[in-house]
Amino acid sequence: MLQRMPHDIRALTFDIFGTVVDWYGSIAAEVARLGLRTDGGRFALDWRAGYQPAMQEVRSGALPWTNIDGLHRRILDRVLLAHGISLPETDMASFNRVWHRLDPWPDSAAGLARLKERYVLATLSNGNVSLLVDLVRHGRLPFDTVFSAELFNHYKPDPEVYLGAARLLDLAPAQVMMVAAHPSDLRAAAACGLRTAYVKRPNEKGPGGALEPSRAGEFDFTADDFLDLARQLGG
Amino acid sequence: MLQRMPHDIRALTFDIFGTVVDWYGSIAAEVARLGLRTDGGRFALDWRAGYQPAMQEVRSGALPWTNIDGLHRRILDRVLLAHGISLPETDMASFNRVWHRLDPWPDSAAGLARLKERYVLATLSNGNVSLLVDLVRHGRLPFDTVFSAELFNHYKPDPEVYLGAARLLDLAPAQVMMVAAHPSDLRAAAACGLRTAYVKRPNEKGPGGALEPSRAGEFDFTADDFLDLARQLGG
Repeated sequence: MLQRMPHDIRALTFDIFGTVVDWYGSIAAEVARLGLRTDGGRFALDWRAGYQPAMQEVRSGALPWTNIDGLHRRILDRVLLAHGISLPETDMASFNRVWHRLDPWPDSAAGLARLKERYVLATLSNGNVSLLVDLVRHGRLPFDTVFSAELFNHYKPDPEVYLGAARLLDLAPAQVMMVAAHPSDLRAAAACGLRTAYVKRPNEKGPGGALEPSRAGEFDFTADDFLDLARQLGG
Repeated sequence: MLQRMPHDIRALTFDIFGTVVDWYGSIAAEVARLGLRTDGGRFALDWRAGYQPAMQEVRSGALPWTNIDGLHRRILDRVLLAHGISLPETDMASFNRVWHRLDPWPDSAAGLARLKERYVLATLSNGNVSLLVDLVRHGRLPFDTVFSAELFNHYKPDPEVYLGAARLLDLAPAQVMMVAAHPSDLRAAAACGLRTAYVKRPNEKGPGGALEPSRAGEFDFTADDFLDLARQLGG
């Protein structure tokens, strides 16, 4: 039988895009609001699909350090072109900032409030600091502080990000639990010694999407949403 | 007549020790709680007096980068000796963390809540991140995020700290206002192009203390407390 370590988790660090906020639904709604003549869900997926390759360009050194606002804009220019849409520059800049006003999942704010009673809560996202500050204000999300890849000049899943968060919190990695809807993020955190909580967000890529595969028992906790996670953690 | 710049302040950054929290009263109370046979107010003043020289040791390179927890502990060892007090190591470590649980001034939480309606609120303190996270949790202070000298590997009043905060917020320095009870902190912020708000905390060093001298009109705003500042800013 698996022997769990004594329960000494002091802080929870959260992936944001897809885990705390609904980028797919928020961007599709913005496409509709702007009256763009294209499929909003498809547009959201195409924009998001450029994200990992863009970060890889930074990681490989092909691109100098560029924050997520900058990467989102590079991708947006291409996606608009692919969808046959032309917008004035001021509209493009405003559209790019939709990532600063993504709506949280319905359980996010209430679940975080419950978890905050027992744990330090920090974001730990590849989003830049100003984007994350705008998101927590927009969603009234009760984080204690905002941690971003920008503070470490490394993008997840580079270990510098997970270990940097533990260091700033003055905690051992095992006292920090990464909360994410993405197994790859959690595996990278676990490799750095962090605990892991997998929160299922089946609608991240739109209704009827599939979850990334993971093994049963692979993570310390598996939850349906943040309120379920709070219940499991005894909150 | 002095022509004020158009009002384009987007974020407020706050000094913490003395401006948001009452280190003197909190440490004097801890000395009493621990039953130490010395003057608690004097002890607080002596501990705090070691702070600027210790940061100067880091700034000059005499000491490698050491966070405030580490500097506080070095000073504590000396102050205990000077007060003729001997404590076991575990008590020393716990006592050193009194800086993580300083009480806010009575207006701090309510004033911040009012200011938060219009402005992004961040700490901007020489305290390390984990200390500041503990302080905002202890005082239920509604900051949007925690910025610390630790993120920039420079202590205030080095310009890297003020400019680093503006950069992380993706704002021009003139869109950020430093809020502090210390004219020296505000002058350094103004030299970097930030706006300034001086909040008077006459009891910072105990009842009947004097304020540091400043010139009339030297700062963009001068307030009696955070609620007064919110009123002046139209909140």
